[in-house]
Amino acid sequence: MKIGVLGPKGSYSEKAAKQWITEQKSKDQVSLEYYNDIPDTISAIIDRTVDIGIVPIENSIEGSIGITLDMLLENDLNIIGEIVVPIEHCLLSKGKLSGIRVILSHPQALAQCRQFIKSHFENAEIRTTGSTSHAAKLANEFDEMAAIASRESAEMYGLDILIPNIQDRKENHTRFIAIEAHDGVSLKTERLSSSGDNFKTSIIIYLKKDRPGALYGLIGEFAKRDINLTRIESRPSKRELGDYIFYIDFEGHIGDAIIKDALNNITSNAGMLKMLGSYPICNSNTSKQ
Amino acid sequence: MKIGVLGPKGSYSEKAAKQWITEQKSKDQVSLEYYNDIPDTISAIIDRTVDIGIVPIENSIEGSIGITLDMLLENDLNIIGEIVVPIEHCLLSKGKLSGIRVILSHPQALAQCRQFIKSHFENAEIRTTGSTSHAAKLANEFDEMAAIASRESAEMYGLDILIPNIQDRKENHTRFIAIEAHDGVSLKTERLSSSGDNFKTSIIIYLKKDRPGALYGLIGEFAKRDINLTRIESRPSKRELGDYIFYIDFEGHIGDAIIKDALNNITSNAGMLKMLGSYPICNSNTSKQ
Repeated sequence: MKIGVLGPKGSYSEKAAKQWITEQKSKDQVSLEYYNDIPDTISAIIDRTVDIGIVPIENSIEGSIGITLDMLLENDLNIIGEIVVPIEHCLLSKGKLSGIRVILSHPQALAQCRQFIKSHFENAEIRTTGSTSHAAKLANEFDEMAAIASRESAEMYGLDILIPNIQDRKENHTRFIAIEAHDGVSLKTERLSSSGDNFKTSIIIYLKKDRPGALYGLIGEFAKRDINLTRIESRPSKRELGDYIFYIDFEGHIGDAIIKDALNNITSNAGMLKMLGSYPICNSNTSKQ
Repeated sequence: MKIGVLGPKGSYSEKAAKQWITEQKSKDQVSLEYYNDIPDTISAIIDRTVDIGIVPIENSIEGSIGITLDMLLENDLNIIGEIVVPIEHCLLSKGKLSGIRVILSHPQALAQCRQFIKSHFENAEIRTTGSTSHAAKLANEFDEMAAIASRESAEMYGLDILIPNIQDRKENHTRFIAIEAHDGVSLKTERLSSSGDNFKTSIIIYLKKDRPGALYGLIGEFAKRDINLTRIESRPSKRELGDYIFYIDFEGHIGDAIIKDALNNITSNAGMLKMLGSYPICNSNTSKQ
């Protein structure tokens, strides 16, 4: 089995993949394939170069990863799992702190460390990379460069940890999803694991704009069945300003009668409903893990 | 009157400010003050260096501007207006297309042109700046640099338009807000303009996590009074993953009896309700302007 992650080695998505592999307790031979950025990783899933891809979808400081949400909408993908990874960004360099003139990292990591950068490196040049580990690799080239990346990347790319734990809030987790391609017709509806009731289902929904109260009706289908919504996120439809698509996560499995019933009612009122899949809830989903 | 905008000259927020000034038809002497980035612009409002600040809040391709949402939550600010600006990003340089090795722009503009950059400049170095106009100014330094910025910035900073209209969707608008500081006690509740019913109100709400169905109840307070929700956006509470704050816009004025009534009911059930203000709806809010 081939799993695609953000490369090079040392990325947080590689860490998520290793956590995922351990949890699966599968006896399959697993190899990791490294990609330049999120679009390349997801493209490798779509063209079946890899069996599964693991990409970030949401961070507890900076929120959703837009490109992941967009690609879930635009392609036939099935979410088969989630992995929550604690994030500790460090400032890494082979040079001295006083000599740093360039900061490199992934845009999400830069945003998670916004206050740190503003107060320490107001005048530094900021470069974005496809992953935090790529930033660490590049930072090895010049003493005046520093990467924002994981502790593990320091050793891997011959850098010193100049300052540890630099994100704007100590509490920092990223939720990754494991996704595979599907044939565009149907998703797996059987429960693939024996983890009892601990499933989550993800859908994308577009509400007809000329129907006031449509969102209320939608959420009501869950509320009246006591289905717990764990997340509701809006993204621009990209058609016009003020027009949105909703990404909704809720507890339960698509094979459960109550969930089927709710989704049937929603489908008849929605402009578009896209199923993304049902998968076991990651238990390290809180700060108290 | 002093208005703070993103600088240097040529930024989209300067364009928004000029549009706003024209619409106000005020006879006050107005001067624009230019700031490095969104946090500096908002800080100038808070410490009253400027009377009003104009910053982006939402784009039709890439969605919310996280830092603006966060600073609305963390500070005592009053939204007094919105301005919708059509966005046409261009690739600007004083060098030739074949020689471009570095692309500079604001992170939001880079995200709006993600596919363009990926297909034309896969291996270019990407640098972020506090504004698109700052990118244009810097691109004047070297032939190998190109900025993603407005058409107007080209002439202003001695650059050529190498490729016009490069965002991933032709249809591209950014909504800006005009904000002022308030004393932290109360917002203006009288209708400040005579534009009839065309007002919008913005609030931030935090729902108690241990109350299932709280979001349904919240939206119900609007639905049962036929109050039209124009936007609902979630942001991480930054306390733990899976904990959210909601930013809600709806039609109506805080001084209207029906709105007051809805908000009273919401307040008694919410963990936190923050009023951001009522302001005239921008009529160029659609693609058909």
